[in-house]
Amino acid sequence: VKLDWLGEPVTTRRVTERGFRVECDGRSVPGLVWTHEAPRAPQPLVLIGHGGSQDKRAPHILSLARRLVRHHGIAAAAIDGPIHGDRRPEGIETIEDLRAEFRRVWNRAGTTDEMVADWKTTLDALQKEIGGGRVGYWGLSMGTAFGLPFAAAEPRVSVAVLGLMGTFGPSAERLRRDAARIRCPVLFLQQWNDELIPREAVSDLFDALGTGDKRLHANPGAHAAVPPEEFGSTEAFLARHLV
Amino acid sequence: VKLDWLGEPVTTRRVTERGFRVECDGRSVPGLVWTHEAPRAPQPLVLIGHGGSQDKRAPHILSLARRLVRHHGIAAAAIDGPIHGDRRPEGIETIEDLRAEFRRVWNRAGTTDEMVADWKTTLDALQKEIGGGRVGYWGLSMGTAFGLPFAAAEPRVSVAVLGLMGTFGPSAERLRRDAARIRCPVLFLQQWNDELIPREAVSDLFDALGTGDKRLHANPGAHAAVPPEEFGSTEAFLARHLV
Repeated sequence: VKLDWLGEPVTTRRVTERGFRVECDGRSVPGLVWTHEAPRAPQPLVLIGHGGSQDKRAPHILSLARRLVRHHGIAAAAIDGPIHGDRRPEGIETIEDLRAEFRRVWNRAGTTDEMVADWKTTLDALQKEIGGGRVGYWGLSMGTAFGLPFAAAEPRVSVAVLGLMGTFGPSAERLRRDAARIRCPVLFLQQWNDELIPREAVSDLFDALGTGDKRLHANPGAHAAVPPEEFGSTEAFLARHLV
Repeated sequence: VKLDWLGEPVTTRRVTERGFRVECDGRSVPGLVWTHEAPRAPQPLVLIGHGGSQDKRAPHILSLARRLVRHHGIAAAAIDGPIHGDRRPEGIETIEDLRAEFRRVWNRAGTTDEMVADWKTTLDALQKEIGGGRVGYWGLSMGTAFGLPFAAAEPRVSVAVLGLMGTFGPSAERLRRDAARIRCPVLFLQQWNDELIPREAVSDLFDALGTGDKRLHANPGAHAAVPPEEFGSTEAFLARHLV
């Protein structure tokens, strides 16, 4: 597994950010990794999966990653999902184009398997670079649609923050099946007035999680309105299990 | 409002516990209050309502009260609910007797109003003794069945931990109506595999809460199996709003 660094590392307030690419089955996967300027060894690592129509440098990802590094000495990494961020194909200009194309891609058999493979390859490559500390996963919405199957398939993931997803969309059956294989502690987030994911589909997916060490936090508001307090809970939850 | 102290205060690890009684509409209400040996002024106060077939000195109440005092300098108080603890009538010997009699009492019109009045009188009396700091309420199950109407009726309650209850039992309609009047921040607990309260009844009551500042935390397990982690969340939630 080879990781190519992109550009020079940039350090702000003790957090070093660096771009990279890894090759996986002919796909070039673009990512970012955040580490502490003076890391402890072994350094825990949280993999962060972004939501639909976002990318690896969405503001809440940047904020979460920097807080994990600065407050807890936990490294963080994010990669672009299929057709998102630096993987966006030519000809897709608007957010509507992106959404329409993503629906097509998500419906295609194999998309989830490819993303699971991309994450595994990224983790292999990063662990060679920053060491083999404990690993967590954080991803909501599309970050759960792909990240839950990844966490189910990857025993190195020892804690996960998931949510804003249910047994819903083309992945419904697969999500239910993979959820049963999750054995690590999970914090699952729900938006109580989610306009995209029905409450029953959320309950069904939370029910399906195979781990007994799970908790569901529901907050009022729309799909994208997860409150700052809850981001704080996810940070504390990850730190409790990884540090 | 007159408060009669019972016995001598007992101090253990900086927490002073003292028994009391207050008179309310001819009822003698037995309570306990926990304060810091060297209190700050004004001292915040959390009122704790116990669950069905428990009493004011249930182990988890004692533990929560002592942690509030010791970790945060928040005073705590608990009173016995109708026919519970030191209000248990003669002739009720077993837990089955108590449950059967309680079903009868809870069905009687006026029981909730009496308990709301008992709490108000207790709060009046305690504030005269320990000062008028901020007030919170903590009560699950029967502690919500009576405590939610109290929090709805009492503007001094500025934060509440509720849960293990739904629009359920003889109070269903009243609970839904009073929930709409709640304006303070609420942390609402649910047990995911609750054998007593149906999930829809919990969703319905959480939905009905009039405050936008609410969150629902669901944990796996039976009605009485709230995990220690969640007790920690409730402690932190109260402290965040009261200190």
